[in-house]
Amino acid sequence: MIDFRKAQELVLQRAKSFGTETVPLGQAAGRVLAETVRADRDYPPFDRASMDGFAIRYGDVEKGMRRFVIVETLLAGYVPQQAIAEGECYKIMTGAAVPGSADTVIRRENAEEKNGVIELPELPVEALPAATFPAPVDPRFPWRPFQNIARKGEDLRSGEVVIDRACVCTPPVMGLLATLGHINLKVERLPSIGLLTTGDEVVPAGDAVSPVQIRNSNRWLLESALKNAGAPVVAWDHAPDDPALIRQRIEAFADKDILICCGGVSAGDADYVPGVLEAMGAERLFHKVAMRPGKPVWCGVSKEGKIIFALPGNPFSCLVNMTLLIAPFLRACYGLPPAEPLGLAMGAPRKKRSPLDEFFPVFVSGSPARLTPVTLNGSGDIRLGRQANALALHPANEDDLAEGAMVACYSFV
Amino acid sequence: MIDFRKAQELVLQRAKSFGTETVPLGQAAGRVLAETVRADRDYPPFDRASMDGFAIRYGDVEKGMRRFVIVETLLAGYVPQQAIAEGECYKIMTGAAVPGSADTVIRRENAEEKNGVIELPELPVEALPAATFPAPVDPRFPWRPFQNIARKGEDLRSGEVVIDRACVCTPPVMGLLATLGHINLKVERLPSIGLLTTGDEVVPAGDAVSPVQIRNSNRWLLESALKNAGAPVVAWDHAPDDPALIRQRIEAFADKDILICCGGVSAGDADYVPGVLEAMGAERLFHKVAMRPGKPVWCGVSKEGKIIFALPGNPFSCLVNMTLLIAPFLRACYGLPPAEPLGLAMGAPRKKRSPLDEFFPVFVSGSPARLTPVTLNGSGDIRLGRQANALALHPANEDDLAEGAMVACYSFV
Repeated sequence: MIDFRKAQELVLQRAKSFGTETVPLGQAAGRVLAETVRADRDYPPFDRASMDGFAIRYGDVEKGMRRFVIVETLLAGYVPQQAIAEGECYKIMTGAAVPGSADTVIRRENAEEKNGVIELPELPVEALPAATFPAPVDPRFPWRPFQNIARKGEDLRSGEVVIDRACVCTPPVMGLLATLGHINLKVERLPSIGLLTTGDEVVPAGDAVSPVQIRNSNRWLLESALKNAGAPVVAWDHAPDDPALIRQRIEAFADKDILICCGGVSAGDADYVPGVLEAMGAERLFHKVAMRPGKPVWCGVSKEGKIIFALPGNPFSCLVNMTLLIAPFLRACYGLPPAEPLGLAMGAPRKKRSPLDEFFPVFVSGSPARLTPVTLNGSGDIRLGRQANALALHPANEDDLAEGAMVACYSFV
Repeated sequence: MIDFRKAQELVLQRAKSFGTETVPLGQAAGRVLAETVRADRDYPPFDRASMDGFAIRYGDVEKGMRRFVIVETLLAGYVPQQAIAEGECYKIMTGAAVPGSADTVIRRENAEEKNGVIELPELPVEALPAATFPAPVDPRFPWRPFQNIARKGEDLRSGEVVIDRACVCTPPVMGLLATLGHINLKVERLPSIGLLTTGDEVVPAGDAVSPVQIRNSNRWLLESALKNAGAPVVAWDHAPDDPALIRQRIEAFADKDILICCGGVSAGDADYVPGVLEAMGAERLFHKVAMRPGKPVWCGVSKEGKIIFALPGNPFSCLVNMTLLIAPFLRACYGLPPAEPLGLAMGAPRKKRSPLDEFFPVFVSGSPARLTPVTLNGSGDIRLGRQANALALHPANEDDLAEGAMVACYSFV
């Protein structure tokens, strides 16, 4: 029986990309970018006014001028008609390009405008908003060159690498790609996943159920967890506890990139899944991980080199294996760095229940953030779903956890 | 100018459900459940073996019996053929129903099986796994009644309320609903959102762009953020900075449940959006919030009673307003409790830049979890998207933040 970290390592060693494909921006949200993205031009692409106000020549205020004639109003997107000369200014709006003839933007509220002319009052330096005004270069007056101007290229230079590694297309990344005009994206191809639930006692959720049967919940739990993890289940099937039928169903999934089985992996008389997989020539990476719940998990690689996860059938076990093995495997296949657990403090004590690494559901909340264990009555308890928002680790080598103890916290997928 | 908490309050006062609809389980992942869910039967629905082993009568071991004849093997889903009598046992698998004639399950590894008969060795109590064995009732031997049996109804009683409030259909909730046979679900209807971006300088992301123009990034940022927040944009349009055209586009969105405008909300000469909205009879809830970035946001309610968010046009401002106003509004409309920020410690010091509440992008990581501020060169910096995974608050009433200072951290949508 191996440690869960060792199990993760063995699984991650088998991670590889499922190839790439090109999708339009409108279909890229949530996908993983698989190409280097460079700036197509400088950003900002021009000297950009970051405030509404007046664009002047700094040299003029140095010479003592405080009165300027407005020669033109510049809105965002507009090209100026003329350059300004001494004593002239532009009225300029946030987002507009500051013409080369100007080099300083005075905020609208810091000037008096009347009949096409502005006057700059002799404001004390302290009266000006510190935010856009770190320190005047000349102690005699509060303005400085290029104030309230985002300089062309100060964020990015044309040709500069903006994204150089695998990266999820989150909302800000989507905005970034659109900004750069990057509208056809090379992304990681999604694997096709075949999901096989097993068990004589399991009936479809919509069917009549006898007193000794249970409904198939893992299909729905795993399908939605895999969807959240960025890899949809494309084919689902169910097999009774019959080695021949299990084999037949698995063979029907031969064209899938990933096989996930659920149920029948322990040491009971009807736990045929690992045996069937090994009889089919799959190489076992491990069977059983020293953790609770989820211990009976089997993991291997088919003759064709495809990864197979065979999970124990109780729902919480599925969720633990999904969080610890399958989601990290998918991230690694996509080239993403591991999602490291966060260290957070326990909001209540917790008793040790076994000599294994124990994962328990928690609700993360508060300030400072604390973990509240969600009490379950065994790993088959269906209450889990209502309350927990993450999974925490009670390590094998630690005794009871005291309130305030720091533990590793894994987000649910 | 109001505080962001006051702005949230004003927005949340206008939250109301968009109605409900019934969807099949297969379409419910991520939706918000809008009905009370009760247990259709006891859970577990039968006395369930939680280990592979042998089901005996506790009374027999009390009498000193240690040898039992296996009369039947019970697999999950099977109904026994006969009751056991004195000196008899079932071989039983995890998940199988324990017949009424038995009341104790001995783990497979704690008995010796040979030729259809088992022998219970006189194990010392300490040798048994503590996990399933809190304390023997009789100090003379290690077994106890109902050990390794999850009792019928111990998790839930038939008719008991399982979910009694709005609840997102996360993977464990999906599993729970399937377990209960709840395959047609009443969920909150998704609002239809109309998104109007504005600005003369803004061109579609795929179009040629002049030196003074920028590409429309907010459309993509907001569409994917709204999708993540559980409310897809159903119609998008763009208007130049022209009051008549802005009005026309807004009128075309009259049938939408929510209007989101982006750009043209500040005090510049081309910032027409609030004026147009108010001229159309919209009631202003607020214009400008004392926060940075995102300050110029306008929010109101149309004559028809529909909420309107008019966001400033820089991408980080959009994200801040999405996180602080729009996502909380949607949660409230769905009947979900507010997603409270987590209190986490700064991993580095941060200088105060303005007298307002400042939101800054952070990367949350490590043990103990810490916030690393992501350095931006102004709120228009396109680097934001690559690195940050949350938003933190530098409160107006606090000076520079020291390393280790506790701040409120808001997950990005």
